[in-house]
Amino acid sequence: MKRRTMKRFSTPGTAPGTVSAAVEAAAGPLAISLVAFDAEGYEERRLASLAEVPPASPGKKLWLRLIGHDPVLLNQLTERFGVHPLVLEDVVNVGQRPKVEDYESHLFIIVDTVRRNDGSYQEEQVSLLLFDGLLISVQERESDLFQPIEERLRSGRGKARAMGLDLLAYAIIDTVVDHYFPVLEQISDQLEEIEESLLESPDHEDLEALYSLKRDLLRLRKATWPLREMVSGLGRGDSHLMGPETRLYLRDVLDHTVQIMEVVEACREMATSLTDLYVSSLSNRMNGIMKVLTVIATIFMPLTFLAGIWGMNFNPEAGRLSMPELNWAWGYPFALGLMAAVAIVMVVAFKRRGWF
Amino acid sequence: MKRRTMKRFSTPGTAPGTVSAAVEAAAGPLAISLVAFDAEGYEERRLASLAEVPPASPGKKLWLRLIGHDPVLLNQLTERFGVHPLVLEDVVNVGQRPKVEDYESHLFIIVDTVRRNDGSYQEEQVSLLLFDGLLISVQERESDLFQPIEERLRSGRGKARAMGLDLLAYAIIDTVVDHYFPVLEQISDQLEEIEESLLESPDHEDLEALYSLKRDLLRLRKATWPLREMVSGLGRGDSHLMGPETRLYLRDVLDHTVQIMEVVEACREMATSLTDLYVSSLSNRMNGIMKVLTVIATIFMPLTFLAGIWGMNFNPEAGRLSMPELNWAWGYPFALGLMAAVAIVMVVAFKRRGWF
Amino acid sequence: MKRRTMKRFSTPGTAPGTVSAAVEAAAGPLAISLVAFDAEGYEERRLASLAEVPPASPGKKLWLRLIGHDPVLLNQLTERFGVHPLVLEDVVNVGQRPKVEDYESHLFIIVDTVRRNDGSYQEEQVSLLLFDGLLISVQERESDLFQPIEERLRSGRGKARAMGLDLLAYAIIDTVVDHYFPVLEQISDQLEEIEESLLESPDHEDLEALYSLKRDLLRLRKATWPLREMVSGLGRGDSHLMGPETRLYLRDVLDHTVQIMEVVEACREMATSLTDLYVSSLSNRMNGIMKVLTVIATIFMPLTFLAGIWGMNFNPEAGRLSMPELNWAWGYPFALGLMAAVAIVMVVAFKRRGWF
Amino acid sequence: MKRRTMKRFSTPGTAPGTVSAAVEAAAGPLAISLVAFDAEGYEERRLASLAEVPPASPGKKLWLRLIGHDPVLLNQLTERFGVHPLVLEDVVNVGQRPKVEDYESHLFIIVDTVRRNDGSYQEEQVSLLLFDGLLISVQERESDLFQPIEERLRSGRGKARAMGLDLLAYAIIDTVVDHYFPVLEQISDQLEEIEESLLESPDHEDLEALYSLKRDLLRLRKATWPLREMVSGLGRGDSHLMGPETRLYLRDVLDHTVQIMEVVEACREMATSLTDLYVSSLSNRMNGIMKVLTVIATIFMPLTFLAGIWGMNFNPEAGRLSMPELNWAWGYPFALGLMAAVAIVMVVAFKRRGWF
Amino acid sequence: MKRRTMKRFSTPGTAPGTVSAAVEAAAGPLAISLVAFDAEGYEERRLASLAEVPPASPGKKLWLRLIGHDPVLLNQLTERFGVHPLVLEDVVNVGQRPKVEDYESHLFIIVDTVRRNDGSYQEEQVSLLLFDGLLISVQERESDLFQPIEERLRSGRGKARAMGLDLLAYAIIDTVVDHYFPVLEQISDQLEEIEESLLESPDHEDLEALYSLKRDLLRLRKATWPLREMVSGLGRGDSHLMGPETRLYLRDVLDHTVQIMEVVEACREMATSLTDLYVSSLSNRMNGIMKVLTVIATIFMPLTFLAGIWGMNFNPEAGRLSMPELNWAWGYPFALGLMAAVAIVMVVAFKRRGWF
Repeated sequence: MKRRTMKRFSTPGTAPGTVSAAVEAAAGPLAISLVAFDAEGYEERRLASLAEVPPASPGKKLWLRLIGHDPVLLNQLTERFGVHPLVLEDVVNVGQRPKVEDYESHLFIIVDTVRRNDGSYQEEQVSLLLFDGLLISVQERESDLFQPIEERLRSGRGKARAMGLDLLAYAIIDTVVDHYFPVLEQISDQLEEIEESLLESPDHEDLEALYSLKRDLLRLRKATWPLREMVSGLGRGDSHLMGPETRLYLRDVLDHTVQIMEVVEACREMATSLTDLYVSSLSNRMNGIMKVLTVIATIFMPLTFLAGIWGMNFNPEAGRLSMPELNWAWGYPFALGLMAAVAIVMVVAFKRRGWF
Repeated sequence: MKRRTMKRFSTPGTAPGTVSAAVEAAAGPLAISLVAFDAEGYEERRLASLAEVPPASPGKKLWLRLIGHDPVLLNQLTERFGVHPLVLEDVVNVGQRPKVEDYESHLFIIVDTVRRNDGSYQEEQVSLLLFDGLLISVQERESDLFQPIEERLRSGRGKARAMGLDLLAYAIIDTVVDHYFPVLEQISDQLEEIEESLLESPDHEDLEALYSLKRDLLRLRKATWPLREMVSGLGRGDSHLMGPETRLYLRDVLDHTVQIMEVVEACREMATSLTDLYVSSLSNRMNGIMKVLTVIATIFMPLTFLAGIWGMNFNPEAGRLSMPELNWAWGYPFALGLMAAVAIVMVVAFKRRGWF
Repeated sequence: MKRRTMKRFSTPGTAPGTVSAAVEAAAGPLAISLVAFDAEGYEERRLASLAEVPPASPGKKLWLRLIGHDPVLLNQLTERFGVHPLVLEDVVNVGQRPKVEDYESHLFIIVDTVRRNDGSYQEEQVSLLLFDGLLISVQERESDLFQPIEERLRSGRGKARAMGLDLLAYAIIDTVVDHYFPVLEQISDQLEEIEESLLESPDHEDLEALYSLKRDLLRLRKATWPLREMVSGLGRGDSHLMGPETRLYLRDVLDHTVQIMEVVEACREMATSLTDLYVSSLSNRMNGIMKVLTVIATIFMPLTFLAGIWGMNFNPEAGRLSMPELNWAWGYPFALGLMAAVAIVMVVAFKRRGWF
Repeated sequence: MKRRTMKRFSTPGTAPGTVSAAVEAAAGPLAISLVAFDAEGYEERRLASLAEVPPASPGKKLWLRLIGHDPVLLNQLTERFGVHPLVLEDVVNVGQRPKVEDYESHLFIIVDTVRRNDGSYQEEQVSLLLFDGLLISVQERESDLFQPIEERLRSGRGKARAMGLDLLAYAIIDTVVDHYFPVLEQISDQLEEIEESLLESPDHEDLEALYSLKRDLLRLRKATWPLREMVSGLGRGDSHLMGPETRLYLRDVLDHTVQIMEVVEACREMATSLTDLYVSSLSNRMNGIMKVLTVIATIFMPLTFLAGIWGMNFNPEAGRLSMPELNWAWGYPFALGLMAAVAIVMVVAFKRRGWF
Repeated sequence: MKRRTMKRFSTPGTAPGTVSAAVEAAAGPLAISLVAFDAEGYEERRLASLAEVPPASPGKKLWLRLIGHDPVLLNQLTERFGVHPLVLEDVVNVGQRPKVEDYESHLFIIVDTVRRNDGSYQEEQVSLLLFDGLLISVQERESDLFQPIEERLRSGRGKARAMGLDLLAYAIIDTVVDHYFPVLEQISDQLEEIEESLLESPDHEDLEALYSLKRDLLRLRKATWPLREMVSGLGRGDSHLMGPETRLYLRDVLDHTVQIMEVVEACREMATSLTDLYVSSLSNRMNGIMKVLTVIATIFMPLTFLAGIWGMNFNPEAGRLSMPELNWAWGYPFALGLMAAVAIVMVVAFKRRGWF
């Protein structure tokens, strides 16, 4: 999740509604497909240009799917459907905060998701434009994000084709939001693994993994707060494009976003708590190391000193008090015994302090 | 309290109101029992299917108890009582946030509890559906959670049978909420034990116990915030199913939930504070260890050096200044005396610094 | 302040309004006294039962004081004055959050205080029931809490006897709230003592004292937040039992509670800050200890090594390069001089680093 | 800023509106001076008692300045101007939170300031009573706080004498509030000095200075939050005593108080951050010390051991393998060479690890 | 970003609306230029004084640009356009919080920016006065801040010259706000660099860089909170000077400010987290150092002691137990073997503990 600390920003001072040059260069070809369905039928085809979109007809529900950010084609949205240039700017400069804006004739919705992709995470912005009789969705790139929804429409299971476009928009938002759960579950699992590893033995790799997770969580949090705002705004809004039944369902999505936020916060607390655990464990281990050193030093320093004493070269013949013990028959055993006694006393003292 | 960091989530993209496949497999048989009571009488029996539930009759109060999550039987709730599929989804996918939803004809209430169970904690979600003349409760598994309430109804003590179903719903919520208290008391006791143990001697087991408690508290906190919201929403709501007397009682439950939240927060602060205490105590003990090491090293290093000096093999006959002390009669006692003097000076210096 | 992390809770599932069994056993005899006063006179007497309370008469103000929690007598409050059973439950299960509840005919007020008592703190819950013409106060145990108020009434100084019962209730709340100030002052003083002690030399006893204060502050905080809410609610409420003049005075109590909260928060921050100070001071001292050890080791290890060199037993007669220095007349002085030079170089190096 | 953690509190239970005994004793004589001015003229004189204050006359603006807290004189405020006893209590018991209270006929304003005074800070409470045609200000002690305002009035520069009493009250509040800026600037400077000192070498004195600043900031914060509330309340209030022009100016003071709060918060964060920096720097330095110790020990311990080996007294004549090296002609040079090699290997290894 | 912890404050007590003396001295000459444009044309010229500004004419849009803070010229704004003295004070005393004030005939807007300038950051306050038909902008100093806007006007591209002055004001605010993005991006990059460096090897320079960034972020945060408030206030305000289209665009700027705030907060958390990482890494490294020391000491201390034993000078001829091993043929090899065995045991023990 490296690339998305902030939205793709234009050079300060460019005219509002401008699609930044960097985007123009990077954008691939735009794939357009149109799904038309009503209670009876379902049709899906690829379009070459927006001009092919048929005019709205009562009862017919059109879902126009755009994939990729071709600025030329996108500008046609303004001409054909009266979309505001600021909307196009937000569609193209991905990394926007999720939001909903009510432009009388249509609702503009941005929703972000995060998906697992080969071990790393990938952010993806989905833009929705909900008109009367037409839903336009814009994705960054080809993906299977909406596949379950397409499948349901295609198969016509249950009341799938009977649902209005507002319910379809809900289904898309719901799908996008639910993609956070497996990501969070994985992060939660990783945190538990790190905790176990830390409690056993603190490791520098654990710390790196922890910091990587913390950064991910920071980004997830930045993503989920506006998500909740957006869903709640969509549910509370008074647009005629959202039916009462759909608002009921949105209440359910709201519950999910709140739960996502709570899990993110819980994970963040756990991560912070694990950083403390790492330091505590290191301190603890340091104590262990220092104990070993101190025990060894405290036992052997006095012994080595004693050995040093009797290694001195004072001449025993120089006087009666000049190291007479060197010539005693029991001098050596006595010296060894004294050393053993000192060692034993030390060991006992450490045992008493609970250092073993 | 391992299993419940988040709700049981369905695969992203499944149709709303779907009972997830994993649940279908895991769900045991559904036990149905019906309690019918009014001011005069009380009757309790097991039902084989929801079809046996008698139609509502004025004055008769029915309490339908479902235990377990059999999706087939639950789907009958929709057919028989007009329960929304989203409600069933929430009933089955346990781990939902406590909430209350007003569906005109009935109130849908989710409330979670935590209970002590053989040393560990067990979360349990209770779902309530309050109709006019009928209360449906759904539990995850067979338990004695509602036993005191059944007992009161059965014995007909006080005005137990005279109470309306809203008061029965209150009684259930009250019981469920009050189960937090013994759990919190135990956690609070454990924290005090850990504190005492830490102040005496910091231990790695204390740290592990502390982190386990912290995780428990994190989950409890996640559970209690929405609990308060739910109870407050239930009391403030304008459903005709909740009488004014019951709202008065709900104010009391609200007090309890607020108190639970406060105790949880206090425990969390205490836990954080104990983590700091652990580190402080470790630092303190490390200081003690280092003092021992330093005292020993500082006393014996100079002494060993002195012994090393007189252990050198310079030939006393090589010159007048070549270690003449080795041949002095008082050389050895003088050496020992010098060593003793150095040791005493050191000890006194350490005493002055307060290192003993 | 050990006992009172949470309210005394009943077994989950007991009927609402039940006085818990534990309380029934522990409750001592209930002392009842009645103070009757009006602008002209003042009368005070002990009652044997609530039956002796005279009926309300215009102009006459009655203050009924109950001390202790005898459940039998308390139940008479319901019969005689129509007090709700939930109120009695809150009166008896002490440790409730301060609150005010408006039961049309009377106001129910709970207010908690903390008092110094032989070095430790004692929490005490005071319950007030304000009727038209009657104020009932319930205390946990005999104490001199209300003595200044009694004194003022008894002496009839100023306009003491002219005040209404709402002003009397205010006076009681004011007195109870003001008892927090001396407690907080003492805690604040103790914190300053600990800070001074920590800046001088960090001590394990300081840490214990600090943690004990932290726990006390945590409890005080839990007590004072709802206190503010209660006083503010009482002032904003629209009960006819509270006159406008009394509301003016309550604004003053509100100021005090806000100030108490601020002092508690300030003390808590100071306590947290002192924990950090403790760790900083320990680290600082550890640095001092390590410096001593390092200086000693760094000076004596090279010296001891040098002494070891010339203590080797290579035979000077084995060759020209085999320790010829042992037989030089100036060998020994040179060795000592070299050692002194090494020591001086080391000391100078440490001085330069500022380690002395 | 030692004295003023909390307001001067009376013994719990004293009648409301009582001036505490401690204050009565400590209060010095009350200095009264009256400034009368209108667009044309300006007059200033000392009064002996409040009785000398002339009655209000249209167009004439009176500013009554009281300095000191003589309770007898203050009580005359009640008799003469109908000031509420609770107001007097707040005027005298300094250390009150800034606040504004609207008593119909007059506004009661408390505002606190902090001033530099010989290196330490001094808190001062200013109480204002704004009547129609009369402004009463009460200060704790003689000071030059209002000197610039007097000066402007005296000189009659600009439209100074044309301003209403509400604008005079504003000017006083503005002056009082602006005194926070130089204090904050000094604290901010001190924090930067400490930071520089810490980055160079962490020092115990820095820590003490930091804790002293932290305590000061804690008090400033406690003072500034209610200040903002007060100014905002004054601006929003609907008293007829505050003209619309003055409210415009108050918006400016509000900006200042918000900025003061922000600077206080920023300083507090910086202070917390510096405490961390202190610990980090200590850890860093400890690392340095430990490296020195480890390098020395790791080089000299093996060398000393080698010297010890050849210092053993095994008899070379006891056998062919019994220390034959002692009698080799190149034994000693070889031993020294081996030691040098060990030392060089160690030094190289440390260099590789970047420990030098 | 050193200078600007707080606004440039005047001496407490100076009359409101006074331009402080310090500013008067520092202020350079004021450059005045006037841009007049309408749908058809565009004209730009330098003015010598405000007197040259032509009167407003319908359809003609005037943009008056003032650069520098010459108090004399600024005072003409009051005379010529009726600007309030408090506004001039805020224009001159730079470092104000961003804000919008509605003076009926004109809107007063302050907006701050931060720009990269030769490695360091430079704060700049832009003041806007939006009249009907006239926009006055005041900058601190000559800069290319508005160059892209001028360019668009000059070239007349798109509908640049058709836009109203409210949209021009919007364009200026948008430009100013967007300048935060590159600054934040750079800070974000620096934080990542520091993190990588810390994970590799903690360094004192990293710490200094981190603290410098933290201080910068603290200031950015102080700047961005009121920015959001200002933009939101401008959008919500009911001034007739802001058209509905412009309010739509302001919603976009609001999104940007919210995003800036979020990035600042995220960076601040990351910075805090990195401080912890620094300490963790130091602890970790300390553990490594201590391990080396302990391993060396634990291996060589016993060996040195053994060498010391056999270096003692007990006379082998004094008795049978007096160091007979010295005269054994295999004594020396046995001693070396014993030492090797001890060393091997130690090394194996450390390996088992994972210390290598």
